[in-house]
Amino acid sequence: MAQHKLFLLPGDGIGTEIMAEVEKLIAHLNNTGATDFATESGLVGGSAYDVHGAAISEEDMEKALASDAVIFGAVGGPKWDNVPYEARPEAGLLRLRKDLGLFANLRPAICYRALAQASSLKPELVEGLDILIVRELTGGVYFGEPKEITELGNGQKRAVDTQVYESYEIDRIARVAFDLAMTRGKKVHSADKKNVMKSGVLWDEVVRQAASDYPEIELQHILADNAAMQLVRTPKQFDVMVTDNLFGDILSDVAAMLTGSLGMLPSASLGAPDPQTGKRKAMYEPVHGSAPDIAGKAIANPIAMIASFAMALRYSFDMIELADKVEKAISDVLDDGLRTGDIMQTGCRQVTTSEMGDAIIAKL
Amino acid sequence: MAQHKLFLLPGDGIGTEIMAEVEKLIAHLNNTGATDFATESGLVGGSAYDVHGAAISEEDMEKALASDAVIFGAVGGPKWDNVPYEARPEAGLLRLRKDLGLFANLRPAICYRALAQASSLKPELVEGLDILIVRELTGGVYFGEPKEITELGNGQKRAVDTQVYESYEIDRIARVAFDLAMTRGKKVHSADKKNVMKSGVLWDEVVRQAASDYPEIELQHILADNAAMQLVRTPKQFDVMVTDNLFGDILSDVAAMLTGSLGMLPSASLGAPDPQTGKRKAMYEPVHGSAPDIAGKAIANPIAMIASFAMALRYSFDMIELADKVEKAISDVLDDGLRTGDIMQTGCRQVTTSEMGDAIIAKL
Ligand SMILES: CC(C)[C@H](C(=O)O)[C@@H](O)C(=O)O
Ligand SMILES: CC(C)[C@H](C(=O)O)[C@@H](O)C(=O)O
Repeated sequence: MAQHKLFLLPGDGIGTEIMAEVEKLIAHLNNTGATDFATESGLVGGSAYDVHGAAISEEDMEKALASDAVIFGAVGGPKWDNVPYEARPEAGLLRLRKDLGLFANLRPAICYRALAQASSLKPELVEGLDILIVRELTGGVYFGEPKEITELGNGQKRAVDTQVYESYEIDRIARVAFDLAMTRGKKVHSADKKNVMKSGVLWDEVVRQAASDYPEIELQHILADNAAMQLVRTPKQFDVMVTDNLFGDILSDVAAMLTGSLGMLPSASLGAPDPQTGKRKAMYEPVHGSAPDIAGKAIANPIAMIASFAMALRYSFDMIELADKVEKAISDVLDDGLRTGDIMQTGCRQVTTSEMGDAIIAKL
Repeated sequence: MAQHKLFLLPGDGIGTEIMAEVEKLIAHLNNTGATDFATESGLVGGSAYDVHGAAISEEDMEKALASDAVIFGAVGGPKWDNVPYEARPEAGLLRLRKDLGLFANLRPAICYRALAQASSLKPELVEGLDILIVRELTGGVYFGEPKEITELGNGQKRAVDTQVYESYEIDRIARVAFDLAMTRGKKVHSADKKNVMKSGVLWDEVVRQAASDYPEIELQHILADNAAMQLVRTPKQFDVMVTDNLFGDILSDVAAMLTGSLGMLPSASLGAPDPQTGKRKAMYEPVHGSAPDIAGKAIANPIAMIASFAMALRYSFDMIELADKVEKAISDVLDDGLRTGDIMQTGCRQVTTSEMGDAIIAKL
């Protein structure tokens, strides 16, 4: 069995606590001979700033680039609210995405059977919900230049951000969405604001062109504002949704919140396959943030982090069966009534971060 | 009593049908001596394109500029999907907003008592919901330059949109939000993506500065993605939310959808007060679209259009009592169990567009 290199970046807040559960899981899988992972850890976000004065050090960037997959916790917290803009915690995350070329962000929004009641939506609207948001992650307004604030005199300033997309960037993310849709319901919604944005016009044009290589896919255009509404109205009408970096940020958060399982949702960020080896750079991270308010209390929910690791098994290492097993273990402990505080329900048993991690490992 | 000039732009799809109900209401108010409105009608959107080859004619633009308030229906439909970009139906709406200087878009999301069950959210989360989204409407990525698609050769293209905000644009919309919040719950959330966008950094800076003139206002910053999530999770935590043009487009649609009353929600778009007369240019329009699928069937819900007219009474003509009366009439006919098809519930009586209009007038 080939050895794989994982680079762990727990980050800030609850990041270290939930990453500890993934480390336990990795140790367990290595010990039972199921896997052979070599792990190394680094710093990102505020914790990197405290040590290196930057949101990620050059050394850790190199380790990330050399790894087979990065497992990322969460960044940010009030402690770093006033650090220089270029060194803010998020800058570490954005640099990882950009420098690793992770253009494809996969955000599944699934509703765990045991948690349908926890959604703010009526349970019948979200039971069995299984949406995959495919978000472009290295382009658009996140990285376009100019991106600046200029002084105009008299205390007036002018801020500019630039949304840029080239055809090839849209084409490759559309194909990721179509490929994934072929393994699911074969239905793709493409969301943009082509009625207002030229990038939306190009987005729609290129997505349609790419779709002609996927005759089995049912492609539907939807305006991003309407997509947000429809997600709230009847989420089960969606299977795969592909959209740009900024709309993806918002729409995937809406989709995540619908499930009532926000603390449970993972994400994968993938690069292009290497022309020689076929391998993709990849990073896996929970959809939730660093939750500074509950950090250090051993009560954080480790499920999104563990589910992100399961996505690594699936997408980086082709260990489909093992990924299925981890996901089933998560679902099983929920069915058993184990809950961390964030998802506590009457009649269930409240457990700590590490009890939850242990219970999932015990199920394997 | 001073005569006021209303310019009616019904637009496309159901726009003409719902505007007819406002015309009936105006006639009723004029006849009873409650008001003295002079009305004139024009074309906008696809219907303007069919006649003039543009989404609004210069002549109608001039009438809009000369009016005391524009009452706008809705634009768009599949018939005009392939007209040149500059003449697409939305271009008429965007030009009106820009040339009239309507920078402040007020979008109340209220949940009508009788309709709480119609929301996809659990009724207890939306009953009594009353959020006001204050959206910047003449800046940001909607109008920033460059906004273009360039050919790069080899079939590759590059699309650019530009998000631009100057301090004064942010300051004036923040003050609109604070002034309105002073008449309500005195709580304002300001939503941006300052962790990624320089325009967000400036947005937050200017909003905080402006807030120092409103010591009674409780101002909270929220990231736009989190705002979308929190709207879905616990909408009643919000009172007034101020945000930019693009985030406002999406967040106000989410807020509208939460109420279960989408076909019922109005909006007001206001300009700056004229330095001499104190009067603001203004346009009033429903939040919903032109619904081409049900156009011409006499079943469209006229309530959002009538409620938009009520906002005109309130904000353009200071007829607060009359505005209250119209709004109460709407709420009363709903309590009486009258419903158009879009909001039909068992035990209620289904009525046509014009029956609904008549019933509201009868209540006055
Ligand atoms: C932390 C922030 C920069 C990030 C983003 O905006 O992409 C986050 O919201 C996300 O969705 O991963
Ligand atoms: C029709 C469209 C241009 C418009 C917008 O994006 O502003 C609409 O969605 C709205 O919210 O009024």
